[in-house]
Amino acid sequence: MKKFDPKKEFIMSKTHNFGAGPCILPQIVFEQASKGVFDPDGGQFNGLSILEISHRSEAFVSIMEEARGLVRELLEVPDNYTVLFLQGGASLGFLINAMNMAGAHRKAGYINTGAWSTKAMKEAKVAGLEVIEIASSSDQNFNYIPKDFEVEELDFIHMTSNNTIFGTQFHDLPKVNVPLVCDMSSDIFSKKIDVSKFDLIYAGAQKNVGPAGATLYIVKNDCLNQSSLKPIPSYLDLNVHAGKDSMFNTPPVFSVYVSMLNLRHLKATGAVAEMEKVNNMKASELYAEIDRNSLFKGTAAKEDRSKMNVTFVLTDESKKEVWDKIWNDANIVGLKGHRSVGGYRASMYNALELESVEVLTKIMRDFEAQYQS
Amino acid sequence: MKKFDPKKEFIMSKTHNFGAGPCILPQIVFEQASKGVFDPDGGQFNGLSILEISHRSEAFVSIMEEARGLVRELLEVPDNYTVLFLQGGASLGFLINAMNMAGAHRKAGYINTGAWSTKAMKEAKVAGLEVIEIASSSDQNFNYIPKDFEVEELDFIHMTSNNTIFGTQFHDLPKVNVPLVCDMSSDIFSKKIDVSKFDLIYAGAQKNVGPAGATLYIVKNDCLNQSSLKPIPSYLDLNVHAGKDSMFNTPPVFSVYVSMLNLRHLKATGAVAEMEKVNNMKASELYAEIDRNSLFKGTAAKEDRSKMNVTFVLTDESKKEVWDKIWNDANIVGLKGHRSVGGYRASMYNALELESVEVLTKIMRDFEAQYQS
Repeated sequence: MKKFDPKKEFIMSKTHNFGAGPCILPQIVFEQASKGVFDPDGGQFNGLSILEISHRSEAFVSIMEEARGLVRELLEVPDNYTVLFLQGGASLGFLINAMNMAGAHRKAGYINTGAWSTKAMKEAKVAGLEVIEIASSSDQNFNYIPKDFEVEELDFIHMTSNNTIFGTQFHDLPKVNVPLVCDMSSDIFSKKIDVSKFDLIYAGAQKNVGPAGATLYIVKNDCLNQSSLKPIPSYLDLNVHAGKDSMFNTPPVFSVYVSMLNLRHLKATGAVAEMEKVNNMKASELYAEIDRNSLFKGTAAKEDRSKMNVTFVLTDESKKEVWDKIWNDANIVGLKGHRSVGGYRASMYNALELESVEVLTKIMRDFEAQYQS
Repeated sequence: MKKFDPKKEFIMSKTHNFGAGPCILPQIVFEQASKGVFDPDGGQFNGLSILEISHRSEAFVSIMEEARGLVRELLEVPDNYTVLFLQGGASLGFLINAMNMAGAHRKAGYINTGAWSTKAMKEAKVAGLEVIEIASSSDQNFNYIPKDFEVEELDFIHMTSNNTIFGTQFHDLPKVNVPLVCDMSSDIFSKKIDVSKFDLIYAGAQKNVGPAGATLYIVKNDCLNQSSLKPIPSYLDLNVHAGKDSMFNTPPVFSVYVSMLNLRHLKATGAVAEMEKVNNMKASELYAEIDRNSLFKGTAAKEDRSKMNVTFVLTDESKKEVWDKIWNDANIVGLKGHRSVGGYRASMYNALELESVEVLTKIMRDFEAQYQS
């Protein structure tokens, strides 16, 4: 008789979410967040839902402060930086970064690693900056990270740390002698970073931080109120938000609350160092299988492969139907590649468990075996 | 023996949230929203949380479309208008409205009814418009709605339909012959409106619509792509969002989801007409008590009194401590007035039940009786 293994049964029956969209978080965080919204046992906020308490209440101010404090602690943010949670996603961040970081030259350099950098350049231009594309990997459909560039007189250089679509990631920071601005939406909290190397980091919450609707900014205090594009509209002015402890207007209460819960969980489970270790294991395991398996091929340059978004294609497109059935049957969702690259993309944000990667590599091996028999 | 009345016991023991902050919603909506985040019975979204499904998934696209459709249906939005859910609150809306509605004159008229209008004017100026304060009630600490003004050559006139701080509300629309723009954050869905009288309506969701983090825009299609301030940054351009069915970038998924649930509930319980009836009853009852009770006095001009935010003071400040204890003991929260007005403010958004108003008026009568005995 087959021995019943509850863990294995659970793993094989649960949904493995490899999607690139917002946001996978640990189940325990979803459970806590759910109770914050409605708790049949009475609720934590004086009987009210987290959604209905005032953002000026002691309860919410303390949530906001804990969230900002956890960002500071987990990323070892130096004291001379300010941490903010705003709205608008990285799409508004493209504009906010340009408006706040504009300096005497009104000229910025962008490292173009694909869709997100391209959008960031567009908004910087509308903001009134001269935008120099100092490096680009567009010649190879953005399948690598460009590493050589000349720096002219620039107010700042902008980079996107991880490209979700093409599956590339900076593993070393570019060497620059001007302020460095980074859109870290898709890999923040996935590995240790040295915040002091950046003047401004911004990140849509919805990958590793919390639900869509909050955007994290980590800005060096020297950069506040220094823009050459003043006056900046209030909502776009990081100095305005900094002066109000990230409560200039009603914040995205629920997204900040869940981000706080998630960062609290991250801290309790080994913080960023442990997460980086697990993420390295997940990436190693999947890339090893892609490289080993004759039916698959990675699309990004090996040295620039993303540990968050693994892009790969079938070596034989005629096997697509069979393969699609196999992973669907394994309760894997979100594996379809972005239309600009095609093929497959396994997004492996923090909350994706190693077990899910094991399920994926197992069915990849099974798939190959099926054609070797 | 006293007969046990479960309903009465429940009413007297529950928390009555008269707070002005975000957002009180019906308990059933909180319960549904909570299950969307985490459902021990498996969840509705293929076993996933609403927070982790892709915003491009069929499930979420259909939530967004239902939310937009319910706005359209419940407010009888004409076909030549577009409904959008963006981020940034009314604070970003102040800027978005000015940038999108700027016309040939680059000049706009603002009816100043207090804090929110003042902020709106500030952002319009930063956007590059000449701002004319065509009317203001600042001479009386904004305790009335100014009704007379001259209209020069203006691109649009801006009004705030309800002032949460001073407790005033427009009960008749100003007669204008230029496009009318309205910040309806604090009274949208509380009463029937004629959308065709406006060119642009915007509203932070966090009073009557849903949780903080989403902002509703209802814009006449003729106003899209007509700004004299082009190019507008993408996130601030309503035409960009309209062209992408409100999915230009990752939307505030949870806030839109809960807004949809709340509007669904509103529709099922009599829609806006029924809500208006209940809101009228709540306001009548509380204002009648304020006018009748010798210990209280309303602060707003009678004809301009808000049905959403009722502002009042004690006629004898020395009774403050006693009164504060009384309402605190009655499980009333959020009754403290805004610092610009002092006294008390009873915010009575849609989800505040008539019973809560009955509790408040009852303790007001008890309080008076205590001093008459």
